[in-house]
Formats: sequence, C-alpha cells, structure tokens
Amino acid sequence: MTSAPTLTPELERILDSVPAVPVATDALRYSCGDAELEGYLAAPADAAGPRPAVLVLHDWAGMTDHVRVRAQMLARLGYVALAGDVFGVDEQPASPEESAALAGRYYGDVELFRARVLANLDALRADPRVDTARIAVMGYCFGGSGALEAARAGADVRGVVSFHGGLGTGAPAEAGSVTASVLVLTGADDPMVPVSAVAEFQDEVRGAGAPDWQVVSYSDALHAFAVPGADAPEHGVAYQETADRRSWVALQDFLRERLG
Amino acid sequence: MTSAPTLTPELERILDSVPAVPVATDALRYSCGDAELEGYLAAPADAAGPRPAVLVLHDWAGMTDHVRVRAQMLARLGYVALAGDVFGVDEQPASPEESAALAGRYYGDVELFRARVLANLDALRADPRVDTARIAVMGYCFGGSGALEAARAGADVRGVVSFHGGLGTGAPAEAGSVTASVLVLTGADDPMVPVSAVAEFQDEVRGAGAPDWQVVSYSDALHAFAVPGADAPEHGVAYQETADRRSWVALQDFLRERLG
Repeated sequence: MTSAPTLTPELERILDSVPAVPVATDALRYSCGDAELEGYLAAPADAAGPRPAVLVLHDWAGMTDHVRVRAQMLARLGYVALAGDVFGVDEQPASPEESAALAGRYYGDVELFRARVLANLDALRADPRVDTARIAVMGYCFGGSGALEAARAGADVRGVVSFHGGLGTGAPAEAGSVTASVLVLTGADDPMVPVSAVAEFQDEVRGAGAPDWQVVSYSDALHAFAVPGADAPEHGVAYQETADRRSWVALQDFLRERLG
Repeated sequence: MTSAPTLTPELERILDSVPAVPVATDALRYSCGDAELEGYLAAPADAAGPRPAVLVLHDWAGMTDHVRVRAQMLARLGYVALAGDVFGVDEQPASPEESAALAGRYYGDVELFRARVLANLDALRADPRVDTARIAVMGYCFGGSGALEAARAGADVRGVVSFHGGLGTGAPAEAGSVTASVLVLTGADDPMVPVSAVAEFQDEVRGAGAPDWQVVSYSDALHAFAVPGADAPEHGVAYQETADRRSWVALQDFLRERLG
C-alpha cells in the first residue's frame, strides 16, 4: 500500500519539508474486539536493528492522506511510524457529520477510545523493527485527545504529543497513572481549547502526579492549525503554517529527547 | 575582560553544553542618562561580516557569571551577544535585599526600565560586527520582564524571549506597539507567574495586536528554573535541569527561525 497517488500541494510541501530517504510503507491489519482496524506503516527502507517508533493518531476525518504523510515524514526521520486507525475499516467517515458523530461516540466512551488507541499501539509494538522501549504516541485534534488518553491509561511509552487535541476527558488521570512525558501543542485562539481548558488540564496532570509535561501555546492559531487544508475559520478551524512548522520542530526536539 | 576565573561546576556544565569555539570577550561601557552601564560582550573570535546578535538581560542579582556564561554560549553558537547591564556599575546589588529593592524600583518605573534596556540594545547595535536587522533580546527573571518591556516599547528587533520573567507591567502594550516575535518560557509552578498571569499576558498581547507570540509552560518548574544554583524552593525559586535544557533548545529554535 502506498499513499494516494496524488497528494494536495500542501501535503506535498509538508512531506518535502523533510529530506527524502527511501521509505517502505505497508497496510497493517489488526483488530480490537469485533472491529477490524487498518493502519498505515512507514519505516526507513533500510530499517535494520530496533528503531524508535511513533504511533500517529488521525483527526476526526479518519484515515486520510494527512496522517499517512505524517507517518512518511517520521519514517524519513528514522522512526518506524504507524498511522493508526481508531474508527476501523468499516466506519471511516464520509462527511463532517459522520466525523462528528463518530468522534462524539469515542469522546463519550473513554473505555472504547482507550481500547482502540492501545490496540494500535500493540500493533506497532509487534513490528520486529520496533525498539519497544522507545515508543511515542502523537495525534491531531481527535487523535491528540486519543494520545492523551493513552497517557491517562498508563500506556508504557516514553512520550505523548497532542497537536490541537481536546484536553478534556470523561476519565481524568488518576494518581500515578500517567508515566509518559506529555507535550501539548495548542492554538492560543482554538475555541475548542480555551485557556481555561489548558488550566484544567494542568490541574489534572499536576494533581495526578504526572512526572513530566509541557504545554506550548501558539498565537493566532485555531483548531487544526497543523492540518493542511483545514479552512473553516468561522468555526474556529484553520491551518496555520507558522504554528505547523514550529510544532513540528517541537515534536522533533521532543522525540530526540525522549526516544534518542 | 574575561569571565571570573572560576565558574561554579553548574555554570561550567551549561557552558560546556555548547561545543567550544574561540570566543572574544570584552567589557563595554556606555551610559543611560546619568548612569554608567557596563555590559559584557562575547562574539566568535573570527567574527567576520555582520552577524546576528542577542542582548541578554540579567536577573535581579545583576551582572553575575550566569549572564556572562549565557553570552559566551551564544557566542559559541555564532551570535554577537551582549550581557547587558540594567542597574549600572554603581548599583550592582550585594544582597537579596538590595536586589529586591532595585528590581522593585524598575518594576515601579517602566519608563526607566525601558530606557535602560534600550540603552543596552543601542550599545549592542553599535558594534560593527552586528547585523542590526537581526537582533533579539532575551532575559532571565527580572531580565525576562525587561525583554518584554523592550517588546512593549516597540523595539526594532526580530525576537524577544523571556525565561521565567514576570509577565505583568505598569504599562501594557498598546495597539500595534509590539512588532517583535515573542517567546515566553515559564515554569508551570512558578508562584510569580501563575496560570492567571499567563492568561492576562495572552489577553494583553492579543488585545494589542501583537503579530506573533508563543508561551511554553514546563511542569515542575519554579521561578528561576534556568538559573543554575537557584535553590530556594520554599520561596518558589529553584533551578531545574530539564526545564533549563528544554528552554535552551527552544531558544535556539527561535533564534534560528527569527535571526537565521
């Protein structure tokens, strides 16, 4: 399986912001309960020996070129990267309405949400090229929330990164449950993540004794600032190139520090 | 003029976190009104042609080895760096009480504070090795506040960085006054910079139409997290190695982006 034959110019641009190296990609099938999931795996073509790995979780639009491109970018940087599938092959949304309904189901059922995220993590962990001691989880919007749920669930990973993810949860972190380092990258003008939500999140992780977290706020950035093509500022949603570029730099710093 | 012949082991460690290259250092005298100021200038020894430059503002302890070491670190990275003097040669504090009184005088007289910061900036700008189109201002604690005052005063610089600086001011930014990109690096547990102060700052710069700003919060970091040797957690003041290292990485990313 390869990425779609034609990417949008914006996706081409972000992909090519990382110097090209040969990358091997594959579809990967696995299940979670009754659901069949299909992720998209990307790794350096020469992947010899165990490598650090990153699970990338999609936004509410599901398995799009965007997350596949992010996985390819990470593979170019030397990571084994799985664009994970939360919704499952039978429930990829075909419209914003379906996306909203699906995302709402997971936000309303934290147990299901965590199970799906952790199933993706297990699939990545099972890849023989992966150094299972050096894994991070990241995600965009809905997937950012999913990455934070992995942290709350105590997933045995080194790091968790949320790009403009919602910071609330139906099941706040319990004392000692979060062991991963957490990096929250958020838009200062994101109506879904107001400054009060950032403060509540900080109270949550501080209260749970989470050992290590950071929050970065970018000015003039709305929801989905790192999703090329997002363009509904009237709904508080828009791509913003500067915040995208800076958050990608912050991600690389974080992965370098946490995964080596 | 060279740095003090013996640095503390903590300052030696942060200095040597930047690969050594030959650096030329000098005392630099200039004035502001009736006050004589003496900064500490550091630049790559081979400084040929115009180079990007950084003004480093001291914390309330005044001209200490800490800011001299930061200037040396920046010089090793290729910048012309001036550890600037806000208090002046006749008023370097000799005790925490004197530091508090001095800092209080500047916090209470924004006009004086800005004049001193801008005098330092002029001194740096006058160095023939400096590319005056590529200058940033940064500072620690009191100096972080000073850097933000430079931004509010509309200083013609590309970037302003505050390390655990107080974010309040007696003269909030006016519409259009801030033109520099601003990076605020703050400790999530800094009692001098509670989450409410971060929110107020964001409201201030957003309201003034500041074009570009970022705020980074580090967990488990108190006031002075980037000042080696700071050790008064009972007063909310302590060095924290992880936040120091990360904030230095964030600084480098920012300078690379803003100054090239």
